[in-house]
Amino acid sequence: MRVIVVGATGTIGRAVVEALTPRHEIVAVSHRQAPIRVDLADRDSVARMYETIGQVDAVISAAGRARFAPLRELTDADFAMSLANKLMGQVNLVRLGHPSVRDGGSFTLTSGYLGRYPAPGSPAVSLVNAAVEGFVRAAALELPRGIRINAVSPRWIRETLQAPGRDPSPGLPVAVVAQAYVKSLEGNQTGAVLDP
Amino acid sequence: MRVIVVGATGTIGRAVVEALTPRHEIVAVSHRQAPIRVDLADRDSVARMYETIGQVDAVISAAGRARFAPLRELTDADFAMSLANKLMGQVNLVRLGHPSVRDGGSFTLTSGYLGRYPAPGSPAVSLVNAAVEGFVRAAALELPRGIRINAVSPRWIRETLQAPGRDPSPGLPVAVVAQAYVKSLEGNQTGAVLDP
Repeated sequence: MRVIVVGATGTIGRAVVEALTPRHEIVAVSHRQAPIRVDLADRDSVARMYETIGQVDAVISAAGRARFAPLRELTDADFAMSLANKLMGQVNLVRLGHPSVRDGGSFTLTSGYLGRYPAPGSPAVSLVNAAVEGFVRAAALELPRGIRINAVSPRWIRETLQAPGRDPSPGLPVAVVAQAYVKSLEGNQTGAVLDP
Repeated sequence: MRVIVVGATGTIGRAVVEALTPRHEIVAVSHRQAPIRVDLADRDSVARMYETIGQVDAVISAAGRARFAPLRELTDADFAMSLANKLMGQVNLVRLGHPSVRDGGSFTLTSGYLGRYPAPGSPAVSLVNAAVEGFVRAAALELPRGIRINAVSPRWIRETLQAPGRDPSPGLPVAVVAQAYVKSLEGNQTGAVLDP
């Protein structure tokens, strides 16, 4: 399959590309580093990305920023950025992208553990992650031509926790997380939230 | 308790006011009809509402608009309105309002059944309802001075279905739905999503 991976240079995206490369043609997209670039917060940038790439079988998003900060520190701008980027950026990948996806293709978006299991500092992230899952469940009922859509909800990733002074042992290896994206792409689920 | 009810003139709001009036002092707020008015989509309007009302024990929101329409018809403006009104309007009730809520008080927001159980036409509504629930779970961990927060997720309401040509029998009586708001206000749950 020809598969767009948005966020292809991030921790999860790199692992997804690595897992898919043997069997699929990957179109790598990222905000700043990949050959094709997209600013998820900019609707026109998303539309241009699809024009540049043309027809594909699937779109995987392992991208999107949301602000992690305590409720008392979160500003209007923090909420606006989080909604525009990780939430509406991914929603627009679907809204603008489904005409570029072939019959029976798929979208896989990224939510995250904090959507259902919050932590202090997660109000904006939890809001966005839960919203992505709500959108995915609903959009699955309406996408045309057998196109499927799922979300992957990653837990803490071992490789992300390997900063100095942090204990990486509670983290899931990113290669395990990547398998949830593979399952969404190659399986037949739709409207699902996949927990690696 | 002194309780703000936002959306006090709506179908649910009226039932909540009726259920609470015997035991509590109600401050009725609505977009257009109550003595005190608020435009949830306007942050300054929310701030002015709290200045006008002063200290309270609790805030109940049975308000907020989100656009019900098929994915292919939902416009950028529909998503923006839904995010600004039912989602950020209720988030801002909490962000701007908690200094006006006394120790041990509470917020009760409204999400809705479509957040977890979508229907064709619900992508924007499902997104917003799920987001409200994600925010509530997270904000519960951070609100100061023992202030609690819950969401009520109403199902279809019998009284709303009583339009000509519709079958009201699958709907839940609004007086039953109102009891979930009473439970949130008078109970000790926090971070919960209450299903009437």
